[in-house]
Amino acid sequence: MNVTFDVFRGSPEGRIVADKTTRVLQPHEVYIKVTHSGLCGSDEHFLRTGQVLGHEGAGIVKHLGSAVTSVKVGDRVGFGFTHGSCGSCEDCLTGWDQYCPGQQQYGSHNLDNGTFSYHTVWAESHVFPIPENYDSAYAAPLMCGGATVWTPLTEYGVRSTDRVGVMGVGGLGHLAIKLASAMGCEVVVLSSSEGKRQEAMEYGAAEYHVLRSGERPPEECRAVKHLLLCGSANVDYSSLLPLMATHGTIYPLTVAHVPSPVPMLAMVHKGVRIQASLVASRQSIRTLLDFAAKKHVVPTINTFPMTVEGIEEAMQTLREGKMRYRGVLVCDQ
Amino acid sequence: MNVTFDVFRGSPEGRIVADKTTRVLQPHEVYIKVTHSGLCGSDEHFLRTGQVLGHEGAGIVKHLGSAVTSVKVGDRVGFGFTHGSCGSCEDCLTGWDQYCPGQQQYGSHNLDNGTFSYHTVWAESHVFPIPENYDSAYAAPLMCGGATVWTPLTEYGVRSTDRVGVMGVGGLGHLAIKLASAMGCEVVVLSSSEGKRQEAMEYGAAEYHVLRSGERPPEECRAVKHLLLCGSANVDYSSLLPLMATHGTIYPLTVAHVPSPVPMLAMVHKGVRIQASLVASRQSIRTLLDFAAKKHVVPTINTFPMTVEGIEEAMQTLREGKMRYRGVLVCDQ
Repeated sequence: MNVTFDVFRGSPEGRIVADKTTRVLQPHEVYIKVTHSGLCGSDEHFLRTGQVLGHEGAGIVKHLGSAVTSVKVGDRVGFGFTHGSCGSCEDCLTGWDQYCPGQQQYGSHNLDNGTFSYHTVWAESHVFPIPENYDSAYAAPLMCGGATVWTPLTEYGVRSTDRVGVMGVGGLGHLAIKLASAMGCEVVVLSSSEGKRQEAMEYGAAEYHVLRSGERPPEECRAVKHLLLCGSANVDYSSLLPLMATHGTIYPLTVAHVPSPVPMLAMVHKGVRIQASLVASRQSIRTLLDFAAKKHVVPTINTFPMTVEGIEEAMQTLREGKMRYRGVLVCDQ
Repeated sequence: MNVTFDVFRGSPEGRIVADKTTRVLQPHEVYIKVTHSGLCGSDEHFLRTGQVLGHEGAGIVKHLGSAVTSVKVGDRVGFGFTHGSCGSCEDCLTGWDQYCPGQQQYGSHNLDNGTFSYHTVWAESHVFPIPENYDSAYAAPLMCGGATVWTPLTEYGVRSTDRVGVMGVGGLGHLAIKLASAMGCEVVVLSSSEGKRQEAMEYGAAEYHVLRSGERPPEECRAVKHLLLCGSANVDYSSLLPLMATHGTIYPLTVAHVPSPVPMLAMVHKGVRIQASLVASRQSIRTLLDFAAKKHVVPTINTFPMTVEGIEEAMQTLREGKMRYRGVLVCDQ
């Protein structure tokens, strides 16, 4: 079966361009009417490549490939960062399928598979049913932003009795605060300004400290066991070490292309680890949707129409640091 | 009870100086006749402070403080890096007593407690009985060198089915090869030259690759799950990332005072972690002595007399990179 649908690409000039694309629906693929797409900071990185942008999708299944069994027409589903994994490599077999070398990742060979589109074709294996009581507009940002903070919160030993630091209150950070708080953790927010204090506390933070880049954490801030770096990628690790508890873990979730200087001696004195983490496995995304629905954790979103103008306005809002806190494109077509 | 004993200190001029010191034996301390002391690279760092050097001791218990119950006169014991821990802080209660802020560490407030001495006074809690069939000359280097590689090999998820990389074949590295091999791991040695190939293979390595600083690992070297950095502290992390398996862990055991540049983006793409580690907990040292004795794992040592001249010769040998592979001072007094 051939399907032709409307998509939005970036362009070398940095403008959004409307286009159409045609795909043959493969046996294990589903054809989806996109209803919502989150906007992620990394979309900016791919803006000039010409590919279809977006990797935080939500929509409704419209057609099934001949071999699809796990969803049915009419299901509301989320779909995101990854498109397929092999199912048989060590990464897949150990539950870390987001690292599968065989998968087609966003930005690799998959120019027409983005969520800035009216419809899309996605691998059945990477389509996630959205719980009945959970709005698709909220599910979309969980596919990458939520997933990115969910893995460190659930896969590396965070306990509900731990103090969990969240540095940076933005698309990732605000979700980390809400999720960690719902998990029972004592959430300690570190922000470069006072501006987001009230919202952070409403989202579930126990403490809010102003910490500018390179400054040492305030004396009154007790050590945290886990620290999620959700803000600027230019983190001064040396100034953060005093904040870490013995055997604490730092998770760099927003990273720079240039190496970061890390004070290994200070790390050794406390047995601190740095745990890198890439979005989430398929199973982890399932548990995130389930948890978010049960605990009524939703992203705080700004909506824009899924049009050339709407996408450009959303991207400009993000560039200017004015998104509160995740942009969502809504498709009325 | 007062005890007076001979010790060897460093000096501002960098010479070794013989001295005597007097201590009151406290209720929970033991008075030990030192028979052996390992020599560690970090002794060089404290050479000019004037303190008694050495933190890899083995000896025989001679007198007990009034409250001592866990050892008896005549016991052969090892004693090393740490002198006391509080027993009630979070670190002590969670089995990570080497991080206890209350302990008196080597180089802090404990100027007269070194193992370069004919006798010493040590906290009962940090004295470890040496298994009957295990030579004290071999037990001594386990107290710091062995302990330092034992923690990453046993506390952070290394499995006997894993490929374990050991970078640098020296005092730490040669013990890491022997211990990891005895644990059943596939040991992959990385060295800056061909010179130690034969010994490394005899110690249990499965593979030996020449890798000079900043070079990328050879193509034919399959990824390792754990990588112990046992050589130069100036490690080029960017060049090492291709060597790491998904979710692999790098353990910086020899660290520099200046921060190391770490490529966070490459870390994220593989979910790699950097786990800092400081010697070993008391329980970990017990399991090390037990394992080494049962599996007949012994350090390869060069012996020197415990005299001013012997210590200076040993330290010069280490400085020149000629120790094969751990220096041990033997006390015949």
